[in-house]
Amino acid sequence: MRPSSSPSDGLLGGLSGTSDVDAELSDPAVLQAMLDAEAALARAVADAGIMPAPAAEAIVARCRAERYDPGALGRAADATGNPVVPLVGELTAAVPEHHRAWVHFGATSQDVLDTALALVAVRALGPLLRHLDTAVDAAAQLADAHRDTVMVARTLGQQAAPTTFGLKAAGWLTGLAEARDRLRQAGVAQPAQLGGAVGTLAAYGPAGADVAERFAAHLGLPPSPLPWHTRRQPWLDLATALGGLLVAAGKVALDVGLLAQNEIAEVAEGGVGRGGSSAMPHKRNPVDSVLVTAATRRGPGLVATVFAAAVQEHERAAGAWHAEWEPLLDLLHVTGGAAARCARMLVGLRVDARRMRANLDATGGVLLAEAVAARLTPAVGRRAAHDLVTRAAAAPSFRAALLADTEIRAHLSDTEIAEALDPHRWLGSAGRFVDRALVAVRGADG
Amino acid sequence: MRPSSSPSDGLLGGLSGTSDVDAELSDPAVLQAMLDAEAALARAVADAGIMPAPAAEAIVARCRAERYDPGALGRAADATGNPVVPLVGELTAAVPEHHRAWVHFGATSQDVLDTALALVAVRALGPLLRHLDTAVDAAAQLADAHRDTVMVARTLGQQAAPTTFGLKAAGWLTGLAEARDRLRQAGVAQPAQLGGAVGTLAAYGPAGADVAERFAAHLGLPPSPLPWHTRRQPWLDLATALGGLLVAAGKVALDVGLLAQNEIAEVAEGGVGRGGSSAMPHKRNPVDSVLVTAATRRGPGLVATVFAAAVQEHERAAGAWHAEWEPLLDLLHVTGGAAARCARMLVGLRVDARRMRANLDATGGVLLAEAVAARLTPAVGRRAAHDLVTRAAAAPSFRAALLADTEIRAHLSDTEIAEALDPHRWLGSAGRFVDRALVAVRGADG
Amino acid sequence: MRPSSSPSDGLLGGLSGTSDVDAELSDPAVLQAMLDAEAALARAVADAGIMPAPAAEAIVARCRAERYDPGALGRAADATGNPVVPLVGELTAAVPEHHRAWVHFGATSQDVLDTALALVAVRALGPLLRHLDTAVDAAAQLADAHRDTVMVARTLGQQAAPTTFGLKAAGWLTGLAEARDRLRQAGVAQPAQLGGAVGTLAAYGPAGADVAERFAAHLGLPPSPLPWHTRRQPWLDLATALGGLLVAAGKVALDVGLLAQNEIAEVAEGGVGRGGSSAMPHKRNPVDSVLVTAATRRGPGLVATVFAAAVQEHERAAGAWHAEWEPLLDLLHVTGGAAARCARMLVGLRVDARRMRANLDATGGVLLAEAVAARLTPAVGRRAAHDLVTRAAAAPSFRAALLADTEIRAHLSDTEIAEALDPHRWLGSAGRFVDRALVAVRGADG
Amino acid sequence: MRPSSSPSDGLLGGLSGTSDVDAELSDPAVLQAMLDAEAALARAVADAGIMPAPAAEAIVARCRAERYDPGALGRAADATGNPVVPLVGELTAAVPEHHRAWVHFGATSQDVLDTALALVAVRALGPLLRHLDTAVDAAAQLADAHRDTVMVARTLGQQAAPTTFGLKAAGWLTGLAEARDRLRQAGVAQPAQLGGAVGTLAAYGPAGADVAERFAAHLGLPPSPLPWHTRRQPWLDLATALGGLLVAAGKVALDVGLLAQNEIAEVAEGGVGRGGSSAMPHKRNPVDSVLVTAATRRGPGLVATVFAAAVQEHERAAGAWHAEWEPLLDLLHVTGGAAARCARMLVGLRVDARRMRANLDATGGVLLAEAVAARLTPAVGRRAAHDLVTRAAAAPSFRAALLADTEIRAHLSDTEIAEALDPHRWLGSAGRFVDRALVAVRGADG
Repeated sequence: MRPSSSPSDGLLGGLSGTSDVDAELSDPAVLQAMLDAEAALARAVADAGIMPAPAAEAIVARCRAERYDPGALGRAADATGNPVVPLVGELTAAVPEHHRAWVHFGATSQDVLDTALALVAVRALGPLLRHLDTAVDAAAQLADAHRDTVMVARTLGQQAAPTTFGLKAAGWLTGLAEARDRLRQAGVAQPAQLGGAVGTLAAYGPAGADVAERFAAHLGLPPSPLPWHTRRQPWLDLATALGGLLVAAGKVALDVGLLAQNEIAEVAEGGVGRGGSSAMPHKRNPVDSVLVTAATRRGPGLVATVFAAAVQEHERAAGAWHAEWEPLLDLLHVTGGAAARCARMLVGLRVDARRMRANLDATGGVLLAEAVAARLTPAVGRRAAHDLVTRAAAAPSFRAALLADTEIRAHLSDTEIAEALDPHRWLGSAGRFVDRALVAVRGADG
Repeated sequence: MRPSSSPSDGLLGGLSGTSDVDAELSDPAVLQAMLDAEAALARAVADAGIMPAPAAEAIVARCRAERYDPGALGRAADATGNPVVPLVGELTAAVPEHHRAWVHFGATSQDVLDTALALVAVRALGPLLRHLDTAVDAAAQLADAHRDTVMVARTLGQQAAPTTFGLKAAGWLTGLAEARDRLRQAGVAQPAQLGGAVGTLAAYGPAGADVAERFAAHLGLPPSPLPWHTRRQPWLDLATALGGLLVAAGKVALDVGLLAQNEIAEVAEGGVGRGGSSAMPHKRNPVDSVLVTAATRRGPGLVATVFAAAVQEHERAAGAWHAEWEPLLDLLHVTGGAAARCARMLVGLRVDARRMRANLDATGGVLLAEAVAARLTPAVGRRAAHDLVTRAAAAPSFRAALLADTEIRAHLSDTEIAEALDPHRWLGSAGRFVDRALVAVRGADG
Repeated sequence: MRPSSSPSDGLLGGLSGTSDVDAELSDPAVLQAMLDAEAALARAVADAGIMPAPAAEAIVARCRAERYDPGALGRAADATGNPVVPLVGELTAAVPEHHRAWVHFGATSQDVLDTALALVAVRALGPLLRHLDTAVDAAAQLADAHRDTVMVARTLGQQAAPTTFGLKAAGWLTGLAEARDRLRQAGVAQPAQLGGAVGTLAAYGPAGADVAERFAAHLGLPPSPLPWHTRRQPWLDLATALGGLLVAAGKVALDVGLLAQNEIAEVAEGGVGRGGSSAMPHKRNPVDSVLVTAATRRGPGLVATVFAAAVQEHERAAGAWHAEWEPLLDLLHVTGGAAARCARMLVGLRVDARRMRANLDATGGVLLAEAVAARLTPAVGRRAAHDLVTRAAAAPSFRAALLADTEIRAHLSDTEIAEALDPHRWLGSAGRFVDRALVAVRGADG
Repeated sequence: MRPSSSPSDGLLGGLSGTSDVDAELSDPAVLQAMLDAEAALARAVADAGIMPAPAAEAIVARCRAERYDPGALGRAADATGNPVVPLVGELTAAVPEHHRAWVHFGATSQDVLDTALALVAVRALGPLLRHLDTAVDAAAQLADAHRDTVMVARTLGQQAAPTTFGLKAAGWLTGLAEARDRLRQAGVAQPAQLGGAVGTLAAYGPAGADVAERFAAHLGLPPSPLPWHTRRQPWLDLATALGGLLVAAGKVALDVGLLAQNEIAEVAEGGVGRGGSSAMPHKRNPVDSVLVTAATRRGPGLVATVFAAAVQEHERAAGAWHAEWEPLLDLLHVTGGAAARCARMLVGLRVDARRMRANLDATGGVLLAEAVAARLTPAVGRRAAHDLVTRAAAAPSFRAALLADTEIRAHLSDTEIAEALDPHRWLGSAGRFVDRALVAVRGADG
């Protein structure tokens, strides 16, 4: 099974996507979703007393994807610009002659395709959110387990001051959880589409709004107060939620990739037999970090395309609508892959607390300069404290320089200097922030 | 007053922005917001009992933008990469010597600049949302007044079937109202930022989380459960809400521009003395539609930039953070202009109901082909009905061909044909959808 | 055969792509290109006297795509992050044991994949440029045939003044021809990639640069002076040339779509049985215009992604490289479809010169206001001429108002007014511009 | 002086731009370019014998920016959608009454603004290319000076094998030089625009094409064979060349930022008193790397916007044209800043060759695994060599393990192992590639 439009699980697509999400994006899956829309339409129109029940039953019975050939439909679609027209033709031909009048009754192609893509999105979000749940849980475990594991915080690429790996993981956790909130919200809000040719549901007479609600109910989708043929907020919400997850997962991947550099080596990806290089036998690449980063670079362009396509003229657009299909599927595809790999990366992450401490200590306490300055500031003022500390930091050994500096020693005892240089004493609210992040995700009893 | 970073109200900036929003984005406004952050910081640290109250008062008293030169700060910023460092230098110099230790105490540059941009966004959303309210009200009035004004619906650029101008306006209304919901939501959710050098608030000892909450309260911003130095969901939410409004306003502008084409001429922009051409004295350009369309084309690229910048490494990012400032201000700038012009366009819109009817009638009833086919389908089936109607539609006069076609006449009487060709009878749920849209915005009593 | 990564020729992919271009992007085609790179590598290393000739022959003999399963390779690729590692594994296993040491000798995965994508691009540009040639020829024929067909020019959406359809077609022609120039240039400049593990070609000792040149020669690609593992200008050139063609084709499609509006009806797409609607039997949609427009909306996002991915760190990038593969194939895919459809649209375009003239005349000469003003300006000045003409243009009949206006008549005779109102006399350099555009494409003798 | 539309040299704009480039983008500079276009127009029309010479002289004399107020023009522009209309009004008023008829004769607003932006681009490219020349020269010097300085190459974020810093700098050099080529090419190709109201130059009768050529000649810009009102290839070429430079400079900045990490510390930015932190006195941030990286993140979105705006309908577009102005100026602004900072970063770069060697040696020779495997492969085959080396690489000391491994020792002597582990012997064509890059930029005698 291959994803319908963009991702294949062939040579390259499997590296950006993941199989369970991609299965929901495959040609058969999209085709089934289109047929689910046709079936729900028949049921809804019959419910409203417009279509005879046997006609609906006859239609519903033929709405099974395995009866139709996606490739043939795709080729036939070139004549009309969308695959619904040939599908309706084949479905009509498959239905006994006296029921044929009722196939696709009162709907337009866009009703079927928009609804199908909403269904596809909801279905793809199933496995995608499961991967994300795994990632969230793994991040929470890391935050919890390493609540007090000190490491060096880096700002603007430079070692800055102590923090904890727990706080870093809590940041990942919060980012992933926020992305999950938005994705869940977008997922439950994808509405069914039913407007008929021009958004009035004219074919149903006064029953249109009623038919539209029954249609949505049959599909388990929320109804839309009015058709959204050229009002694309649902896709914007979906695309930005997916793009937001790419950002959150990309942040984890970026940090892991940087922390896994040989010179830093504070974390490593797990996984047996993964990350080998074709040219360098000794090398182990952080493959999941790499592939999530790749997915992340594609997010802004895809999100931008969905926004660019969302400006649609008149009652149904000449091209902008057609521009949405593949980018939406692509976004689901790459976000699925990113979620799965982010989960695997976090679950298997190897954390080297000793190396973290070693890197923190490597510069002889200079990373606690702010702590020392803070202790000096009340006595000598911020600028003087800054200057004193800067002078000491320029010496070969910060600690020795501090102990030897008479101006400093006028204000700080041996013990105070030792305390100032203890990273565990310069973590501020790190632990409390970790706890908050855990409570936010696990609840107060978690 | 000029917007701080990107838009000037000079030669070109006034065409993409609008003055009241731009005033909130100007150098003095951004500078004041930075100083508001410094003042709130001093207050919060004093509240927590860390800083002496007189020090806080001394600092607060100097936090007035007119005391500082944005240009000089901007030039000095080149040495450190952000304008907070020189501002803190000047603020410190302005404070009596014995209080200087407390200026910017425990904070990092990003705390001040992120918080300032959140404040700027909230303040710019004030006038922006007022313009949007005007636009929403005007769209509602159009939907209400033209609930039953028939016009031709156009799909894929072609005349399709009857609809009402009320339904079109209801679509605009719903789009603008949805965008407003998301923008209000994003506006109230922009959090204050306070994390200190590396996100631990180490300088405040155990009081960090408390100081952060007091800081936010002084600014009227929500606090963040933990610092968001490299977790940029607030900017994503803001950018996508602004981008969504550009889409909603852009849809109105696109429709107005198309309907204002001379050959269609169903609407015209109001405004005396607007829209003149330098070369063609007879011409009146739909200027607001044009300028909103221009703003709309810039949305996807700006939204993409905010997403691209949102992936930020370690505890504070080396460049990605700096990449956010101008694009966020640009987005506020162009969205402000789009909101103001969309409001003016809708308030002044001239609707030519007679021309709408004339365009609907121009093709002699063929736009009711679906109505005729619908009446024939129960008798002859969908495909046969389609074929019969297609045959009649190919004749010079659709109506005459229908009346003359014996196969059709076997099923439809004169009256039935006349009814089928009456656009008011083929509007389905248009009126109900308009009512729904109005209720959603105005409430049930509106 | 399905495109390798993104486009399928299944349900949706055929609507954005075209079959001959897509065939060159399919899994088998990409796989064959990878194997072509492995074969050329073996030959080049043997040419340089490093690898024994029989080893190279044995390798080359196994470099046929049908021997390998793209899906299996894709799945195995997950462990290493690219499909070259498993392919090299399978190729090695297929080669007699005593030659295995020489498979992929001295190369890295990126050498093979970059080179393969360059080959794929060059091969896909074959049919793509043939479609583009057809489009260019058809635009030239339209420009030629309609050199003197007057029509109304429209600016800012409004009727403005006379032009010719020939000049409009000459603009399309020039745009498509410029895009073709850049695409041909980018096509011949896609270099082979050979750098080895880190860009030094260390495995070949001093022969590296020589091997790289022989490698490129075997593939018919230009060599690169030095490896371009993290210097991605070739992809930028390719992507911007493809994006430029989407713009040029999109301009044609946009114009055709607008001119095909029922109220304007100056052109129509040809094609029997194309453009039918599922809901409205009378309707004929300009399907090619619609689908080219759809492709056009996707261009900016894809181009942006290639630029975003092009910033690559160190000697080979951790993710940015991987982000390029699918977007590059997607760009080739959608541009191929746009070229094919643009060609078909232009070849079949039906031009209604009578309707063009009727639309030009519909406003009773007011579109010649500039012509009248120009004749008045020397006598009364630009502003007075503008005022006089504006006054006349406000009357029900412009022509009558001109003839009746004594101030105007003081300067213009009946004949002069008639001449001023003749569109053929107000075409300026239109004909000359058409001739220039034709000569530029066809040569002076064309 | 502030840039016209987007960048200010105020609080934030100076951090993304640079003053000499920004001066060419300021309101006065854009206004002067517009007036230069009006002056050249008057001269060209007079040259062609259409306008009296004294009228042209009178107009030219008033085409000085200091006579007009950009802010007032900008505000007045709101009524017509562009600033040319009010400027023409003021220019006309400034000219003696009997010459007024000739101001802006035969041109349209877009002629003046497109030409002005082309002039602005050419003028801004002056200082921008000077910064780029400095960057290219500095990269060349680094490549030359460090042709044989060994360092570790890193791929996918991991230490991989030896390379030279010279080859890395040669890659930077080649990237910057390629970007310079494209930028120079785009710079000299920005054409003047003159088409009149609808692209026919009707007002000049048969002399239109001649006037257009004279117009271009007066401005020192190339003429365009036909007007390019809705054919925007020149802007695409400019934007992609600017975007390409952002990529090339961004690659340098990214590498510098990564190599400047404390744990790697192979390079540092120069500059006295730069890079201080507001919170951490000991810290020195690589400010230029950071700010170039920030600029780089904005490139894709801005390039995408120029592509999105380039699809323009009919004879002059309703909004897409207006969408180009600020993004083009923004691109020039941020690229100017990136070029200046990249130059400063490269000129001042401190290279620590000893640290490079230390990092290369830190893993005890394992980075030469490929070299060892290459020496073993002829004897035992690629896979066996890989396995033997992998086994040795897993030991605490690679070198010791190699010397102790009897299977390896069966094929490699002490000397051969020592040679295999000498990085200078495993540089392949690195030196030759450096030489090529230098010759390409400096010429064979450089």
